[in-house]
Amino acid sequence: MERRDFLKAGLALGAAAGGGIVTLANAKTAPDLRPGETLRLNSNENPLGLSPAARRAILDGLDEANRYPRDSRVQLIEALAALHGVEPENIVLGNGSTEVLQMSVQALATPRSRLVLADPTFEDVPWYALPFPYELVRVPLDGRFAHDLEAMRRAASSAAGPALVYICNPNNPTGTLTPSAEIDDWIEAAPETVSFLVDEAYFEYCEDPAYWSCVKWVDKPNVIVARSFSKIYGMAGIRLGYGVAHDETAGRLRQFIGKNNANHLVLVAALAALNDEGLIPRSRAANAEGMNILHRALDELGLEYLPSHTNFVMHRIRGELDTYRERMAAHGVRVGRPFPPMLDYNRLSIGLPEEMSRFVEVLREFRSAGWV
Amino acid sequence: MERRDFLKAGLALGAAAGGGIVTLANAKTAPDLRPGETLRLNSNENPLGLSPAARRAILDGLDEANRYPRDSRVQLIEALAALHGVEPENIVLGNGSTEVLQMSVQALATPRSRLVLADPTFEDVPWYALPFPYELVRVPLDGRFAHDLEAMRRAASSAAGPALVYICNPNNPTGTLTPSAEIDDWIEAAPETVSFLVDEAYFEYCEDPAYWSCVKWVDKPNVIVARSFSKIYGMAGIRLGYGVAHDETAGRLRQFIGKNNANHLVLVAALAALNDEGLIPRSRAANAEGMNILHRALDELGLEYLPSHTNFVMHRIRGELDTYRERMAAHGVRVGRPFPPMLDYNRLSIGLPEEMSRFVEVLREFRSAGWV
Repeated sequence: MERRDFLKAGLALGAAAGGGIVTLANAKTAPDLRPGETLRLNSNENPLGLSPAARRAILDGLDEANRYPRDSRVQLIEALAALHGVEPENIVLGNGSTEVLQMSVQALATPRSRLVLADPTFEDVPWYALPFPYELVRVPLDGRFAHDLEAMRRAASSAAGPALVYICNPNNPTGTLTPSAEIDDWIEAAPETVSFLVDEAYFEYCEDPAYWSCVKWVDKPNVIVARSFSKIYGMAGIRLGYGVAHDETAGRLRQFIGKNNANHLVLVAALAALNDEGLIPRSRAANAEGMNILHRALDELGLEYLPSHTNFVMHRIRGELDTYRERMAAHGVRVGRPFPPMLDYNRLSIGLPEEMSRFVEVLREFRSAGWV
Repeated sequence: MERRDFLKAGLALGAAAGGGIVTLANAKTAPDLRPGETLRLNSNENPLGLSPAARRAILDGLDEANRYPRDSRVQLIEALAALHGVEPENIVLGNGSTEVLQMSVQALATPRSRLVLADPTFEDVPWYALPFPYELVRVPLDGRFAHDLEAMRRAASSAAGPALVYICNPNNPTGTLTPSAEIDDWIEAAPETVSFLVDEAYFEYCEDPAYWSCVKWVDKPNVIVARSFSKIYGMAGIRLGYGVAHDETAGRLRQFIGKNNANHLVLVAALAALNDEGLIPRSRAANAEGMNILHRALDELGLEYLPSHTNFVMHRIRGELDTYRERMAAHGVRVGRPFPPMLDYNRLSIGLPEEMSRFVEVLREFRSAGWV
């Protein structure tokens, strides 16, 4: 089959399978809200905003906005290498960590590759796989809402060709952990035909002793770790992520990106944020406070929720998710998009403590109305 | 051949063929320069910097830097569609226009595609083609330093499979025009198996009546036009470009990019820049003034140059380009990278008028030393 024909077939397939991919543009907002009144609890952003140090770095960088990035790119790559105890050659910058997912999916595509991923998990990987002849195998999360690594392993090892395994840990949208020791066991034993793409976008929020980074496997050419500046670093809007990988793998990934895929303002902001020692502790503290407010209310209302190791919580609603989302929007709250098959849950991002108190008030109103 | 093997083969091939691709990191700077003293005449940036309107928009946008772009993306796409008299579905945003080149090369790759391009021309397209099984056919520029469309046409029509034709107009690094009427003739007559990727990064600098945009062909699924905010709009560091294409083609291109490939700050800056009616006239005026200063000096020194329709000039040097570049760096001037086979030319970007006067002083010193 010509690639062009494959693309057409892929598009049709995507249209049939893509019902669960809902863009932000679908989120409804009540028209009568006053500006600034909307609670944006839908995209797992850091509600504290840019760190003051990052903001200053951007202001200082504006005079260079007309110049292609040069030193700032080199400096950030060196800082990231130092942070992880690797070489600059092991670091690949992405326009968001999603571009690391994109380049990985593209670089590892073969005519007979199998893509193994959890269900539900972050939607970008299947999106990037759409134009390639990957065979997608979705493996439901296990009883702990962790990745079912045994079942994923069987899916990878029974593939006719190479396998790409996507592990999002902590997992989005559930916020749950897959114990790192279990992942280590598999990576250690896996043949080179099995590649691992480990998404650690929420790494900095997770303080569980059973969790650690897969960057430790950087010497293995079949392991790629993706990290993000969109979450705890508060830079979702200005786009930066990075991959950590074996230098040969990193070199292969770079063939699928532009040499200037990161913009100067986010480069200087990220460097400043890495050097801002208060950023992670204060973001964790605000998140814990907001999380507590939410947990207390969910407990009180008897709405189950999954244990979260992130800045969002997957909690039960009672009734239809679409109706719930519309009613929330009408009350000035944007909540998470649908993540099938978990359509009796809402994924709620943790906002500022005062925003969570406001959300809890709305949730109590919903209970009074019999809506949850 | 497995794609992985192909990739490895491609890498080796690239290492052999890639001698002409010199990155900015290779440019030498004399260590004894005072900060700010370097003249950056190497990357065809707009020396005026960000427009004040764009700068204000960025400052206003900083409070949203922690949020994924939403309205700003929609608004910019609508503004670009209005500018070109097309529908929003015809616009694809890129992280720089280079990402439009990237997604086009990726989306149009087939196992038997031929990629036809001028020699010399902008290097990003062959870079993106590296991991794909494109057969590259480089066609030397003609006697006018325009694209030799007749020879390119023969190369495209003799391909065993589909052909992707890259036309950079005005051409980088020569600054020369290929008459639009000649391109129109080919596009009008070409079969659908021939796709055109027309790079108009310098469009706004060109005021020649023989030049117009290929956006007029938006109804043809085999034409993609790339535009940039890095050049006259002065935003090279903050990364934005876009493609204009038939809606089906645009949809195919979008499969190769992230949904948030443009950052919020450049989105609001670009919208402000589009609405700044003075930006293009004042950038053209500054460019013309700098160009005149350079032309007078080159005439006086008897150094030939190509007619430029851009913000850079390809001019003769006498002697080795590498030596020339090193000497210029030692005098605090960064000049263009090598563009083989034109290694007896330097590509010089037009800086501010006072910068061009300073450059001319250095060039006169070089003449006194017998270096040019």
